[in-house]
Parts: sequence; C-alpha cells; structure tokens
Amino acid sequence: MKVSKIGEFGLIQKLAGQVAAATDKRWKSWRQLIVGIGDDAAVWHPRSPFQIITVDSLVEGVHFSLKTTTWQELGWKAIAVNLSDIAAMGGIPLYALISLGLPPDTKVEDIQALYDGMIAVTEKFGVAIVGGDTVGSPIVFISVTVVGCASNATGKVLTRSAAQPGDKIAVTNTLGASAAGLAMLTRNLKFPPEATTELRRAHLQPYPRVTEGQKLVAHGVKAGMDISDGLVGDLTHICEMSRLGARLNIYLVPVSPVAKACFGDKALEFALNGGEDYELLFTAPARVIQRVKKALDCPVTVIGKITAKNPGKVMLIDKAGSPITLKKTGWDAFKK
Amino acid sequence: MKVSKIGEFGLIQKLAGQVAAATDKRWKSWRQLIVGIGDDAAVWHPRSPFQIITVDSLVEGVHFSLKTTTWQELGWKAIAVNLSDIAAMGGIPLYALISLGLPPDTKVEDIQALYDGMIAVTEKFGVAIVGGDTVGSPIVFISVTVVGCASNATGKVLTRSAAQPGDKIAVTNTLGASAAGLAMLTRNLKFPPEATTELRRAHLQPYPRVTEGQKLVAHGVKAGMDISDGLVGDLTHICEMSRLGARLNIYLVPVSPVAKACFGDKALEFALNGGEDYELLFTAPARVIQRVKKALDCPVTVIGKITAKNPGKVMLIDKAGSPITLKKTGWDAFKK
Repeated sequence: MKVSKIGEFGLIQKLAGQVAAATDKRWKSWRQLIVGIGDDAAVWHPRSPFQIITVDSLVEGVHFSLKTTTWQELGWKAIAVNLSDIAAMGGIPLYALISLGLPPDTKVEDIQALYDGMIAVTEKFGVAIVGGDTVGSPIVFISVTVVGCASNATGKVLTRSAAQPGDKIAVTNTLGASAAGLAMLTRNLKFPPEATTELRRAHLQPYPRVTEGQKLVAHGVKAGMDISDGLVGDLTHICEMSRLGARLNIYLVPVSPVAKACFGDKALEFALNGGEDYELLFTAPARVIQRVKKALDCPVTVIGKITAKNPGKVMLIDKAGSPITLKKTGWDAFKK
Repeated sequence: MKVSKIGEFGLIQKLAGQVAAATDKRWKSWRQLIVGIGDDAAVWHPRSPFQIITVDSLVEGVHFSLKTTTWQELGWKAIAVNLSDIAAMGGIPLYALISLGLPPDTKVEDIQALYDGMIAVTEKFGVAIVGGDTVGSPIVFISVTVVGCASNATGKVLTRSAAQPGDKIAVTNTLGASAAGLAMLTRNLKFPPEATTELRRAHLQPYPRVTEGQKLVAHGVKAGMDISDGLVGDLTHICEMSRLGARLNIYLVPVSPVAKACFGDKALEFALNGGEDYELLFTAPARVIQRVKKALDCPVTVIGKITAKNPGKVMLIDKAGSPITLKKTGWDAFKK
C-alpha cells in the first residue's frame, strides 16, 4: 500500500505502534520520557546536567541509493551515523527524532522496514524514538536528531578543539571497509560471499562506538571525533579546531583486512580518504593511550602525533619518514 | 558565488560566523552553551529539569516555492514553525539545529539570507543556533530541530491528551490569514498594498506564540497545541488524543479581518481548514479561560466545548445550533 493511500496520520499511527512495541523500561531513556510520539513536541526529565545534541540527514541519490540499499539497512545507517556523533563526544545517546521526506507513492511496508532497521540499532543502545515529522517530498530524505547526555557528572566530553602538542593520534578498529563496500556496491564488483557480506555491512550497517567513546572520556581522553568524512579530512578538522598540526604515519594506519584482500593497495586510499568508517579518531598523551588500549575491547592503533608546527595541516609521512601528498582529502557535500 | 565553489566547509564557516555574530549572553541559552557549532555535536548545561524537543522539515515545491518566498522569509518560517511547537507545549525554546539540503548551484548569498531570516526570529526569543549539517540534495529542504525546557520547575506542559469534558475550547488571535496569504501568492491575486503585506506576512512570517504558551501553563491550562494543519484537523487531534469529542461553533471562530476583506465568505473556510496560522488552540474550564483572557496581551476567543460524546470527533455547529459538515479537514502530507 502507498503512503498516499493511508495518509500522513495513518502512517504516523503505524510507525508510532512500531516504536511503542519497542518500549523498554529497563533503559533510562524510556523511564525519563514524559511525552513521546503524538504531541507537538517530546518532553523528558534528564537526570544528567549536561545534554548533547546532533542532527544528520541522508538524501537519496546523494548518500544512498535504493538500488543497492534495503530500507532496513537505510534505517540502521540513518540512526547509527547520529549515534556515532554522540559517541564522538563520549556521550550517552537517549532520544531520536526522525524527519522523513517521502514521495507519495512510497510503500508503507518500506517505511515499516525502515523503522525496523532504526529500531534494531536504537534497541542496542537504549535509545527511544520520541518524535519527528513526515512530509511529502520528490525524493527520499531522512533527517535524524539524536539527543543524549554526558557520560559523567562533571560534563566532560570529547571535542575537536582539545588536542595538545605531543599528543599521540589513535583510531579504533580498522579503516577503509566502508569505502570499499561503497565501491563494491556502486561498481557491482564480485567478491567471495564472506567478503561481500562484510563490506556491505561496513558500508550500510556501521556500528557506532558508543561504549568506546564513553571509555575514552573516562580514561582521560579530551580530544576526539568520529571518522565520517575520511581520516585525513577529519584529522584536519581536529588540527583546525585545535590550531595545531599533525604528522600522520600512513604505514601505521590500520587498513581493514577485507578491504585489502579485495582491493589491494587501493585499500589504503579508502582508509585515508574514504570516510564513513564511524570509528573514533582521538588524541591524548602516550600514557593515556596506554590506559585506553587496556580498557577498550577493540584494537586501538597509534598512527601519528600532534605537533605545534603547521597549525591546521596534516602532514602524511611514509615508511621512509618522508612527507608525501595525496590528491583528495575527504568528503565535501557540494564537491565531487 | 555557488556553494559548490566554496564547498561544504567554506559554507559552514560563513554560516558559523553569522551565528557567532548573533551571540547574546543576556540569554540563558547562550550562557548555558558549552560546545556550539563546529564539533560533532552541541553540548549544553540546562538548569531546568524538564527538556522539550521537536523537529519539522520544509521541502521546496511542497511547503514553499522560491518563486513566491524570499530566502529570508523561508529562514524565518523554518525556525518559527518549530518555535511554535515549543510554544504549543508552553515551553521555553533554547537551541536550534539546522539540517540543510541544497543543490550544488545554490548561491552562497541566498543561504546567508536564509540564515539572516533564521537569526531574525531566534534573536527575538533568545534561541541559539548550535549546530546542524549541510548536505547536497536535488531540491532544497530545511529540517529544523528545536530543543527547549519547561517554563516551570514542576515540568507542567500543554499536551493534546489533557482535555476534559466540559472544557471550553479557545484560540489566540485570529485565523485564516495564512491560508489567505498562500492563496494570494499562488494565484497571484492583487489586493491593496496594506492587505498584501499583511497576508504575505501571515503566511511567510508567522509569529510563534511562545510567551502566550508559557502564560497558558502558568494560569492552569493543561491541554493545547498550535494550529498548523488547520483548526478542525488540529482540534480533531486533541479529541483523538484525549478520547473526547468537541462541538465547534463555527460562527464564533475569529476569522482574520484582512482575510475576510480580501476573500469574503471563503475566509471562514481558510480559518477552519487552511492551517499554518500557528496560533494556539487550547481547552480549559471556563474560569481558567477567564484568567487567561486577562493575562494574555492578545485576543482569546472561546469557540466551542469539549464533550464526552463522540470521542475523536469534532462536530461543527452553525448559528442556528445545527450540526453541519465540511469536506476537507486539514493538511495531510501525502494527500491533496
């Protein structure tokens, strides 16, 4: 059935039902919720004195193609990229609001699948969907707002501006699989089934590093962000905001093994500039990084250091210790 | 200059500058802000224990036409409709996040004008723009999130579900001018200059009833919302959520004088079903309404009452006391 058939309020009612079925009072978010879906706005009663908020939109034909992405995967990703922003601050995500732009001939079942995908990830992190709106649009777009709170009583968060000269630069897990997955999907490349599954998942079902972000803050990391635009571009953001430089040892970058197996040397480029890995990029003194390595369940790799020289710039260093240059430096919404 | 020329980060830098210039530490919002534009998420330190959040999107060709709307007016409206949702809860708006979808050939100056319009209304209400994102899109869309807090320490808000049998139904100011303005703009109708200005402003620069919403809560009103979909449709939402009925005396509805002067009898239809007036619709016992009439600076008109009969339904009553029926009942995103 098309959404134009059941109308805006029919659709909202169905989606509200799906969300209500996912209510889980074991989570603080649901317990602190006073007014949820169905009113002019949502109301909650936070116990934390520090609130965090972020918004991100995905646009059909720009950020995703419904030819290569299922509605369920799209729902997962739309939520996950926003949870990743809360993770990037070291916060606890609590509530999500969904603003959906839909062509009138969109199938209701597809939007229900989209919500299934959203709920699959919100459930994992105790996030309650509490509102949004649904509007007609010639293309599909999904704008997700996530609000959360600081994971500690003193309001400590990770920021892009807190790097210090001499800090080591580190990343969680490996990089490049998401861009490799995108290349596989758009160019319709064939790989062994396991690799195909892994690359597809990396691109369409990123796992936000919420727990990791909170542990970083707890162990004294102050500067960090998530990798959405690409490692080099995002490290440049930290350099700009901190008014410092960075030396990035590209041979130390933990390139995704599956990306390497499928794309060879190209995988390093994916890791440096591909983006959408949604891993955490952070900087801290060496002793803090040591503590973090022990505390986190995932690999943490040191890939360079912050310098007082060349503020706002990232210098790429090869194995011989020589600076090298690369052409592209990350995603820009309006440039191709 | 086109946004594709300066790129996403060049554009964000310009807009961040515009927002920074509007910083005003006399307002609580700015004083409580810890991390604003430029990081993965915004962080603030609310002093109120009850938070309110809402999101609304405007889509080119659906909610606005750049042929009849200036970018500045569009900016005003995109913020105002969200502040109206906070007003509809009787809350205090604090922060706004802007997610913009823009074609790459959009002019930078136009987006700066959009932000001028946004800032013109946020400044009036002490709202700080603290983040958002900017994405490529084949059409322009603007998704605005506004977060605020309850206007009282006990967390009292206006909800759609709090109506009681016997409550009087009331509205602020007059209705119908926004729909009349839309008709004027889309059908290119000619009216005297003063009327033209007033109708245009009613449709493109609605004034959110933030102060009025807070006063309603302070004087004991419990049930209310803003009129965005149309009086009859929105009153139906209150009836559905409160599981009660309503008798709406259509001859009591305060029709906008300018709409009446320009459109005659058609103006009543605009007032009943036109929508986008962003006035407040609320219900309360007669004695509460009396107090509210004295407390508010704007007209308050009683237009009907809440009944235990016919839950979920609005009965329209004419001057002779007879029920009448109308065809259309408000805006639906997917129906025309």
